[in-house]
Amino acid sequence: MKPLKAAPLADRLEKLRSAVLAAGHQQLLITDSLNIRWLTGFTGSFGSVLVGTDETVLITDSRYTVQAGEQLPDHMEVVIIGSDAGQRVADHLSRRLRTDQLAYEADHITVSALESLTAALAESGATAELVATTDLTATLRRIKDTSEVERLRSASQIADEALFATLEWIRPGVSEIRAARQLEWEMAERGSERPSFETILASGPNGGKPHARPSDRVMENGDMVVIDFGATVDGYGSDMTRTLVVGGKATAEQENWYQNVARAQAGGVAALMPDVDLKELHHTTHSLLLETGQDGTYNHGTGHGVGLFIHEDPIISPRSETTAEVGMALTVEPGAYIETVGGVRIEDLLIVTGNGAQPLTTFPKGLAPH
Amino acid sequence: MKPLKAAPLADRLEKLRSAVLAAGHQQLLITDSLNIRWLTGFTGSFGSVLVGTDETVLITDSRYTVQAGEQLPDHMEVVIIGSDAGQRVADHLSRRLRTDQLAYEADHITVSALESLTAALAESGATAELVATTDLTATLRRIKDTSEVERLRSASQIADEALFATLEWIRPGVSEIRAARQLEWEMAERGSERPSFETILASGPNGGKPHARPSDRVMENGDMVVIDFGATVDGYGSDMTRTLVVGGKATAEQENWYQNVARAQAGGVAALMPDVDLKELHHTTHSLLLETGQDGTYNHGTGHGVGLFIHEDPIISPRSETTAEVGMALTVEPGAYIETVGGVRIEDLLIVTGNGAQPLTTFPKGLAPH
Repeated sequence: MKPLKAAPLADRLEKLRSAVLAAGHQQLLITDSLNIRWLTGFTGSFGSVLVGTDETVLITDSRYTVQAGEQLPDHMEVVIIGSDAGQRVADHLSRRLRTDQLAYEADHITVSALESLTAALAESGATAELVATTDLTATLRRIKDTSEVERLRSASQIADEALFATLEWIRPGVSEIRAARQLEWEMAERGSERPSFETILASGPNGGKPHARPSDRVMENGDMVVIDFGATVDGYGSDMTRTLVVGGKATAEQENWYQNVARAQAGGVAALMPDVDLKELHHTTHSLLLETGQDGTYNHGTGHGVGLFIHEDPIISPRSETTAEVGMALTVEPGAYIETVGGVRIEDLLIVTGNGAQPLTTFPKGLAPH
Repeated sequence: MKPLKAAPLADRLEKLRSAVLAAGHQQLLITDSLNIRWLTGFTGSFGSVLVGTDETVLITDSRYTVQAGEQLPDHMEVVIIGSDAGQRVADHLSRRLRTDQLAYEADHITVSALESLTAALAESGATAELVATTDLTATLRRIKDTSEVERLRSASQIADEALFATLEWIRPGVSEIRAARQLEWEMAERGSERPSFETILASGPNGGKPHARPSDRVMENGDMVVIDFGATVDGYGSDMTRTLVVGGKATAEQENWYQNVARAQAGGVAALMPDVDLKELHHTTHSLLLETGQDGTYNHGTGHGVGLFIHEDPIISPRSETTAEVGMALTVEPGAYIETVGGVRIEDLLIVTGNGAQPLTTFPKGLAPH
């Protein structure tokens, strides 16, 4: 884990401070580990960050003394507490409070943890009220800076190359799980920290389940295979899906099925411009598939944000409440599934720019691309 | 994923119902995915379970129609809802409520999610009050039944065998990351679903950080290497640590260091009997290491429960609040770390029985066991 350069971290901190102030708060307590990583670069498993107008303090324990010192930029402070964690965090916090309010991340703290924190703060003599905030960091994290796009691009490139290297295993007589393992191995060989989520490699009828896990089913000539997977670089995941045909010879029906999904996918990508309503983008992509007359269900959203978390804000679905913005990293992944027969899904990871969506996924399309 | 046999699931349900009643509730809403898996066998990513005296209902969406039908035993009901998930879950729940209270898992729901659920239940016309519960399921999950011990044993056996197969890679000139990847490959080859947590393989000075990640450091003759890792079988993880010396020839100082930790580890295992206070067990193990006069810090707990979650209740640390019971699956893992020099940690996974702790980890001890 290389430390992040200080510049993007200083910029993220500045944006978060403005958002905290704009929401009417002076100090925010960050408890979500990915938010902490995004803001400070710290990757340890235990820590909270207090962000105020004049200070940024990571409170962690002695296991992470060295690591926190290496990972945090100079403009942030590290406080090491002993092992009676909850109370000592509160004791330290209570000395740092500047007003009678402390904002917390309501999306990232359990009801029990909030209750413990409240009790510990009272025990330490603090009188501040805990005030719920939502989406402050999540909203900022939607827009990727250059260093984040670099990592997403590296992860996508590793995934592309690993799939090329795995093509020879998508052949009759190889089990799904064997091919999936090969794909994961090829990613690791190219520097991926771990698969960015559980690899889907679903052949024949298994492709009819959008979230199938690799099984010991042995691939046969003519099977379609849905492969949905990603790599991880410095915590940033990639996400792509290709559907291939075993043996390279598709039937006319398979080819038609594939082209119908490909048309919807390309249409969705073309429509992904700044300011497009993401709910509309979902309906557009959905309609494009419907218009082809393709059999099969399409019972999932059209896409989602990708970053330190593999499914992060915003989603592209009927429940979307936002528009696309320059700097968002989004997937576009329509599919058509026929239960007990099979499925086709095609997915690219893209960055929204002023000129439309630029793909980070560059693996060619087609049932038999090699 | 083979469906679990109905008998253990029926038994778990019976125990949970009694616990819910004993806590003064009629119906409990389970939202934690691992609690749902433990109770019902369901492994989907979206679902809630309502448990009452007469019903057990899994509420999930249409992606999981087939899977839920395959995984759930006959004595449980599946309800499929549409995509406007939050409100439809609440609408269904509101028709099922039998009293003016619904208990929920305060340890497994965020403040925001509770607020949304409360609002959605009100919107659907329900008047029941949401009541916090903690630890109902976690306490039951501490005690493993036969089918769970079987899975923990299989995972441990895979880890043991994979480490044997990887010994030839613990040699001069091989990087930590390469050896770690080999170990993970060997586990996958033997049927592990995934590493049960991020593999630690820390050589030389890196061993001085208890939570080091595998780096591109190349192992040298005479390095000590801390290897902490596990396999996963049907969702159940294993957890073990061995410390080896590259090249097989330890110095007198290394051998002494190792034996001191081994003595503390063996003492901790011997003391792990039913009814022993786990706080005391930590202090016992700690004292045994101190008594040897070994240099180095021991800045982590002595162990933890293992099951569907790799670090689950109970912990063995100064903060433990419980005693050992027959059927608990626990690790015992003291270590001694000297910053910039290295570390030794030894860890077994054990099941508490009436005759003391039985190891599931059977890999031999010693810096050069092969």
